[in-house]
Amino acid sequence: MAQQHHELSAQTAAGDVLTAYLQDRATDFLRSLRLHRESGGATNGSEETVDAARQLCRCARRISGTLHTFRPLLDAEWSDALRPELAWLSGTLAREHAYGGRLERLLAALQRLSGTATVPSPAGAGPAIPPPSSGGPAQGTLTVGAAKAGALLERQLTLARTRAHSAALQALGSSRFHAVADNVAVLASEVPLSRTAATADLKPLAAEAESRLLDAVAALPLLQAGHPYNAEALVHGLAADPAPQSQDSPWHQVRLLLRLHRYAREVLAGTGDDDLTDPRIAGAGAALNRHLDAAEAAAAAASAARTPRIAPATAYALGVLHADQRHEVEAARYAFQEVWLREAVRR
Amino acid sequence: MAQQHHELSAQTAAGDVLTAYLQDRATDFLRSLRLHRESGGATNGSEETVDAARQLCRCARRISGTLHTFRPLLDAEWSDALRPELAWLSGTLAREHAYGGRLERLLAALQRLSGTATVPSPAGAGPAIPPPSSGGPAQGTLTVGAAKAGALLERQLTLARTRAHSAALQALGSSRFHAVADNVAVLASEVPLSRTAATADLKPLAAEAESRLLDAVAALPLLQAGHPYNAEALVHGLAADPAPQSQDSPWHQVRLLLRLHRYAREVLAGTGDDDLTDPRIAGAGAALNRHLDAAEAAAAAASAARTPRIAPATAYALGVLHADQRHEVEAARYAFQEVWLREAVRR
Repeated sequence: MAQQHHELSAQTAAGDVLTAYLQDRATDFLRSLRLHRESGGATNGSEETVDAARQLCRCARRISGTLHTFRPLLDAEWSDALRPELAWLSGTLAREHAYGGRLERLLAALQRLSGTATVPSPAGAGPAIPPPSSGGPAQGTLTVGAAKAGALLERQLTLARTRAHSAALQALGSSRFHAVADNVAVLASEVPLSRTAATADLKPLAAEAESRLLDAVAALPLLQAGHPYNAEALVHGLAADPAPQSQDSPWHQVRLLLRLHRYAREVLAGTGDDDLTDPRIAGAGAALNRHLDAAEAAAAAASAARTPRIAPATAYALGVLHADQRHEVEAARYAFQEVWLREAVRR
Repeated sequence: MAQQHHELSAQTAAGDVLTAYLQDRATDFLRSLRLHRESGGATNGSEETVDAARQLCRCARRISGTLHTFRPLLDAEWSDALRPELAWLSGTLAREHAYGGRLERLLAALQRLSGTATVPSPAGAGPAIPPPSSGGPAQGTLTVGAAKAGALLERQLTLARTRAHSAALQALGSSRFHAVADNVAVLASEVPLSRTAATADLKPLAAEAESRLLDAVAALPLLQAGHPYNAEALVHGLAADPAPQSQDSPWHQVRLLLRLHRYAREVLAGTGDDDLTDPRIAGAGAALNRHLDAAEAAAAAASAARTPRIAPATAYALGVLHADQRHEVEAARYAFQEVWLREAVRR
């Protein structure tokens, strides 16, 4: 009887804990939306507006992830309808920030590679051409190539960011977005639980999310990644077949599953369970973010190199930059396996 | 008295051991020279001719290194005159082989990077252009770039190798070479020892060679090299100032000192001393050879990219290739410190 009573209270707690988590995130979402509007959302990017948009994005991802992981506890029809809408919203909002970060990463890499100050100019006029080289015309050509590559990337990624900004603003003014906001407002006041929620528990569902993560990690080539300088990330870097994309995918997938795992643990934290510390999550997440950022930066450099009529020196600099970022991809894989396997041994 | 007698016999042995080693190397030198002539030295590279030239080169380096390390035991005027001549000879003979190896390394890297068969054609007609890409024109451009980069490198390095071959043949027919050969013939019959050789010992001189090596290794940034993916080798890869050259120099210097240390140990092996095993030497030497080869291959790719009027796709492929080889440089440094420090702990 005591056992049955304990289980019953756990089941009651499951719905309460899930409701509390989703209501908190929904409230955060609505507050971010208000902040975004008050900070003058429609005009181009004050710091508050940018912060509010990122916060909106975070809340949307957490709500969507929670609806996914704990689906059996929620009204299926309602949550299945809301999830893709939240994904659309967070995807749209994240893009502007991603282009900005990519440009910053590439210009920092060019600066490291060229030893010159290619500071991004706020007006998008391109980085300053460095002073003429004292090392002869040949090396000078390379430095001019780096400066030109920086200017080209700045032009292309600034344009992409501006378009993403417009798209985000348009999205936030659309009826599609208003429908999402209405649904999140519903969530803030009452979470639509399923009829089976009364007999369900959070832990097995969170465990399933973790198990999907562990399976995906187990399928990664961690042994290879643990050998420094395995040169795998740049294999087929000049191939006709876009293989780098396909070798990156399993890592990107683990990044998403790690995120879902993290959100599920945030929900479980509401149960007051103490055994939730996993020191790997932060480090592994950081490594996988770096993996994604470097992979997309490498792709942006390769894409810029396909711009018609660029100078050979510009193309050369973009080639060096592409390879540099692909090595960052390899370094991120190494960092991931270090975090993951070292902590696995410690546990 | 027993102590003094022991020292006297060690001193006598020193001259004998040094003489035996130098006579053996001189005999090898003369045999290689004969083989080179018999295999038809003047005509372009049969396998025997190439082997004989490399063997000549090896003997010249060993004789020169031994004259350097054990200088106080040898007639100073004679050995100081012979050493630069041996260095000229081994430098001239090594160049042809170095260009061949560099081309092989770069074409192998391009093949790895492009996933296509860029097999060097013996007639120097350039690698076959791979079949048209099925992955769209954009990726196709990159593959064509890799093929064109391969063809350009093959043209440039084959020309350099041919010139080095002619220079080697010319050197071997010169009166300057005949003077070297005459001196080596003297060495084969009688080694001109110094008047102080009777009171000298080999070990302190070999220990000095080792100590020069250890000092140079201690000055290397081994801590940094031990952090995988430190991205140091590509720093300033696009800079006006040719910094990569200067960051490589200490490693090249250690490579030369390691070689001198190895030759000194070969001489000492003639004393029958058993305590001469250092498992680090082979591994460290291989890592430093790889370091040099990759650094020179990276420089060759950068140099090819400065060819006037190349296509942007070619320049892009050369940029990727340059960065790839600079990462090989970094990988070689990592490998060196692994061998060096791991074995140091074991000792």
